[in-house]
Amino acid sequence: MEKKGIAIACRMDSERAIKLAKRIFEFLIKKGEVVYPETRIAPKILPHSGKDLKEMSSNDIKFLISIGGDGTLLRVANGLPQNDPYEPPPIFGVNIGSIGFLDESNERVVFKDLIPLLNGEYNIEKCSKITPYIVKENDEIKLNNALNEILIVSSKHSKVLQVSVRVNGVFLNRSYLDGVIISTSTGSTAYNLSAGGSIITPNTEIMQITPLNSFARSGLRPMVLPIESEIEIELLRPRLNAKIVVDGQQIIKNIQPNSLIRIRKANSETHLIRLSKNLYENYFKRIRKKIIGTVRVPLDDSPEE
Amino acid sequence: MEKKGIAIACRMDSERAIKLAKRIFEFLIKKGEVVYPETRIAPKILPHSGKDLKEMSSNDIKFLISIGGDGTLLRVANGLPQNDPYEPPPIFGVNIGSIGFLDESNERVVFKDLIPLLNGEYNIEKCSKITPYIVKENDEIKLNNALNEILIVSSKHSKVLQVSVRVNGVFLNRSYLDGVIISTSTGSTAYNLSAGGSIITPNTEIMQITPLNSFARSGLRPMVLPIESEIEIELLRPRLNAKIVVDGQQIIKNIQPNSLIRIRKANSETHLIRLSKNLYENYFKRIRKKIIGTVRVPLDDSPEE
Amino acid sequence: MEKKGIAIACRMDSERAIKLAKRIFEFLIKKGEVVYPETRIAPKILPHSGKDLKEMSSNDIKFLISIGGDGTLLRVANGLPQNDPYEPPPIFGVNIGSIGFLDESNERVVFKDLIPLLNGEYNIEKCSKITPYIVKENDEIKLNNALNEILIVSSKHSKVLQVSVRVNGVFLNRSYLDGVIISTSTGSTAYNLSAGGSIITPNTEIMQITPLNSFARSGLRPMVLPIESEIEIELLRPRLNAKIVVDGQQIIKNIQPNSLIRIRKANSETHLIRLSKNLYENYFKRIRKKIIGTVRVPLDDSPEE
Amino acid sequence: MEKKGIAIACRMDSERAIKLAKRIFEFLIKKGEVVYPETRIAPKILPHSGKDLKEMSSNDIKFLISIGGDGTLLRVANGLPQNDPYEPPPIFGVNIGSIGFLDESNERVVFKDLIPLLNGEYNIEKCSKITPYIVKENDEIKLNNALNEILIVSSKHSKVLQVSVRVNGVFLNRSYLDGVIISTSTGSTAYNLSAGGSIITPNTEIMQITPLNSFARSGLRPMVLPIESEIEIELLRPRLNAKIVVDGQQIIKNIQPNSLIRIRKANSETHLIRLSKNLYENYFKRIRKKIIGTVRVPLDDSPEE
Repeated sequence: MEKKGIAIACRMDSERAIKLAKRIFEFLIKKGEVVYPETRIAPKILPHSGKDLKEMSSNDIKFLISIGGDGTLLRVANGLPQNDPYEPPPIFGVNIGSIGFLDESNERVVFKDLIPLLNGEYNIEKCSKITPYIVKENDEIKLNNALNEILIVSSKHSKVLQVSVRVNGVFLNRSYLDGVIISTSTGSTAYNLSAGGSIITPNTEIMQITPLNSFARSGLRPMVLPIESEIEIELLRPRLNAKIVVDGQQIIKNIQPNSLIRIRKANSETHLIRLSKNLYENYFKRIRKKIIGTVRVPLDDSPEE
Repeated sequence: MEKKGIAIACRMDSERAIKLAKRIFEFLIKKGEVVYPETRIAPKILPHSGKDLKEMSSNDIKFLISIGGDGTLLRVANGLPQNDPYEPPPIFGVNIGSIGFLDESNERVVFKDLIPLLNGEYNIEKCSKITPYIVKENDEIKLNNALNEILIVSSKHSKVLQVSVRVNGVFLNRSYLDGVIISTSTGSTAYNLSAGGSIITPNTEIMQITPLNSFARSGLRPMVLPIESEIEIELLRPRLNAKIVVDGQQIIKNIQPNSLIRIRKANSETHLIRLSKNLYENYFKRIRKKIIGTVRVPLDDSPEE
Repeated sequence: MEKKGIAIACRMDSERAIKLAKRIFEFLIKKGEVVYPETRIAPKILPHSGKDLKEMSSNDIKFLISIGGDGTLLRVANGLPQNDPYEPPPIFGVNIGSIGFLDESNERVVFKDLIPLLNGEYNIEKCSKITPYIVKENDEIKLNNALNEILIVSSKHSKVLQVSVRVNGVFLNRSYLDGVIISTSTGSTAYNLSAGGSIITPNTEIMQITPLNSFARSGLRPMVLPIESEIEIELLRPRLNAKIVVDGQQIIKNIQPNSLIRIRKANSETHLIRLSKNLYENYFKRIRKKIIGTVRVPLDDSPEE
Repeated sequence: MEKKGIAIACRMDSERAIKLAKRIFEFLIKKGEVVYPETRIAPKILPHSGKDLKEMSSNDIKFLISIGGDGTLLRVANGLPQNDPYEPPPIFGVNIGSIGFLDESNERVVFKDLIPLLNGEYNIEKCSKITPYIVKENDEIKLNNALNEILIVSSKHSKVLQVSVRVNGVFLNRSYLDGVIISTSTGSTAYNLSAGGSIITPNTEIMQITPLNSFARSGLRPMVLPIESEIEIELLRPRLNAKIVVDGQQIIKNIQPNSLIRIRKANSETHLIRLSKNLYENYFKRIRKKIIGTVRVPLDDSPEE
């Protein structure tokens, strides 16, 4: 069996990210690793060495280093082969200058973090994904798998959708709203949270439906369901199209009224590399630092009498 | 083996509930059933026939009919034997004049509903419960099991608690807030929802931590965790006591600063009787009617051009 | 002085609205009124009788009847002359098959309501408006006046804006969010409410800034200010355009990064006709029926003991 | 005319606060000022020099220095004479170890801040207050004026109130909820904000009604009204008492079902000393630092492509 390589993907629009990608490439080469830059970044690192994301299965690639932020990591997770016939390789996210909640490392500590990584001293956070389908009569058109969320949203900023929601074939309710977010656990701290959904810890097999700016009494509230559920969203409003946005990456426009969108668990997972032994320690630290914060008042602050 | 009986529990403060309890008692007796009114209601139905909740195990009782609202049902679920050595009997809730989200029937349809019930034509919704413990050095003082939620709340309406939250021994954050709700799936539509938590469908093994009126930037957000997690809430603020309220039934006052409250899955379930075949159909109907509603605008309402 | 006329405007995409417009037209003609259909609807009512909205000042028109929903009324309010040199005529909204919060009447009761209207037995609800300006160096490009709200929103559904907010030249904060709503009192029950802003009663000289899905800790919260304030929103994020949407009617795309949008009180009001003597009675009834509801549990519902 | 004095009030439960009070006392004496410690703190500063809050009118006192946090300042504002016959003196808040949103100074900078204060180089932020009345047949029992908010809350943590809300005699709606907050502009960043109300800038003559944990569809939403409005809250639920809490200071228990609580603008203002020339600059800085924060991501953070 041939030696497995390490892949590098990177933001294209950031000089800082590209520079860091080069330095990581050289570092890994010196360590004797086989390194594949993603095709589009290869010309800036080592011409003719590139490999497409869809050719990077876990059969050839030990892991992929994603340099950028959550956007880069989501693009990579969407572009890697989806379990067919091989699993996608695990991803090691390196954050550069943005929130980067999903990333495990950042530009300040990455070279220190690469040591345990190369020694295989890491854990895998297995992230379930979900898949949207556009239902046409008896056909389903499959869209990309979502690591974070599927957004179904009015195509006009000033016109609310009317949608009907069903779960496992059972009618839940009809609502007026800007849109509906169907989020994974992984995506629960992203758009879902901004829209009022709950945070879901990683080790749960869960989906969440969260309404986006629902009109006052329309009633849909954030709802948590087993990820094995089948969710159906039907667009009811005449003359108002919707868009589907998968992980902020794949955008399908002009979804017609009366269309049905179905969401089910994907048959593929994304594997994220975590250096901490305890997944909760890792997760809560990222939550606290990047999402919810913590009060900094002295511990002895007492109520006034 | 002796014939199993049917138990009846009832609100004491409602003449309507007591009258209905009598009529149900007589109906069941005519049908040849053995019927046990709960001790406190027995004098009003058939003196000397009473039985305490804690003596009603599934060994003797086919099911218990709870007449009132969610408060009655929660009181019953708290009072029945908790899995030791027998499971508690399943509960059939009959709502009288309030929201009664957990109830399966109501005073208008109860006699029609009793027929399939007596024929054993029903499903069981199994509801996991959670237990709070007050930790004293190396000891744990166990409180009642909660079917809906455990509330830890400042003992003064005008003074916020400062709490630290840990899950499975890992620090999450410190927050200023009126209190913390730890809710089951069953309780997710109750106080948890009023406080901003998500709805959790019944078939999930989940707990939710929801802050109660957290001070602006304190950061704790509703968070969904596996029910197998161990949650620890520590009271940090000097000179400010808290209360623990279990299902709105058991109230423990004067919890001192620096106390630690631990919450774990209970070793007992509550079983609720549902007449529908499909649990989602039953659940979504109750959600839609009693909690979230649905828009009633004509289906052909289109955006104006 | 010539006799003043009555204007009629109407949704074009609803047969029901157009039919009702015809019947109202005929009713008014029989009553001896001079009636002007809006130009675009005139061919369907009485060819060659049409008049453009912008020619309908209070100098010629007693009042305008708007047949449709809030969208129609907002379009009319935007299209009428804006105080130059005459005030716009007051608007009487007639709702057809949608929420129609701003409308005073509906298709079922409109002919009954026309009697006091023709007798001048009504009150005027004076609605302050706000105006957005795009600031270019030392120039301001004025957009339409808003009766409900000005929305500044990311042009990509999956990418959050970063905006800086200033009031009267003073920096408030920087936030990540989908967008910002600046709402009038009149618009406070519309998009502002869906996004989490407060309801503002009509008789207040107030604007409200409400963030749209702000990223977890970004901090901007709904904020109420005197309508005389000057709000400035600066778009900070490189390579991400925004849109401005005025009352869901005027849409300005491709607002570039580093653009500055300024909002001030408009020099024009919209006058809405109300048949009730008491503005609160009118307002609360509409709020209760169309926006917030009221509980319907019996008054004697008591807590269970 | 006699020389006016400076008053000092202070938390009693904090050694740090008392020490600072002594140092400020000595500093002011050295500067030749007449200084009056509040009676309860006087024994710890200069025995027999004390003066009660209710004797400190603006006729005798230039200003009062409040040492502690918002709790201390609210206690002082409640205890000073309320406009009868003299205005209360302005208050200069010095924060010690808590949030202290209303305070202008803190222990680190207070001695620097005392210089302009003594020179009269400051502005006054005039804060309107509101007064609750318990209505008994044709009598009104007046409670304390509120600088921040009036809270009407269920006396049992597990039982929701049912209240009816009227404004200027007009029915708004009936709701199930833990309680109702009626907040001033000044109090809008306090409990009102935690409960979901909007922030109201100081220069508005406004009250806000905000529901506390309203039951899912009960409908009352945060609502902003002119401060001249008269709000009436009626307690509807049989056998459930309420408490009224004024500014977290005055607590009235055992308010019976069917009681009516009326809220009107108070005939007294609280005057807070601000050292900045521009009230917005002062206010937004405090808001940003203590309440809403600001993002700290680099300004050049762009969306990933």
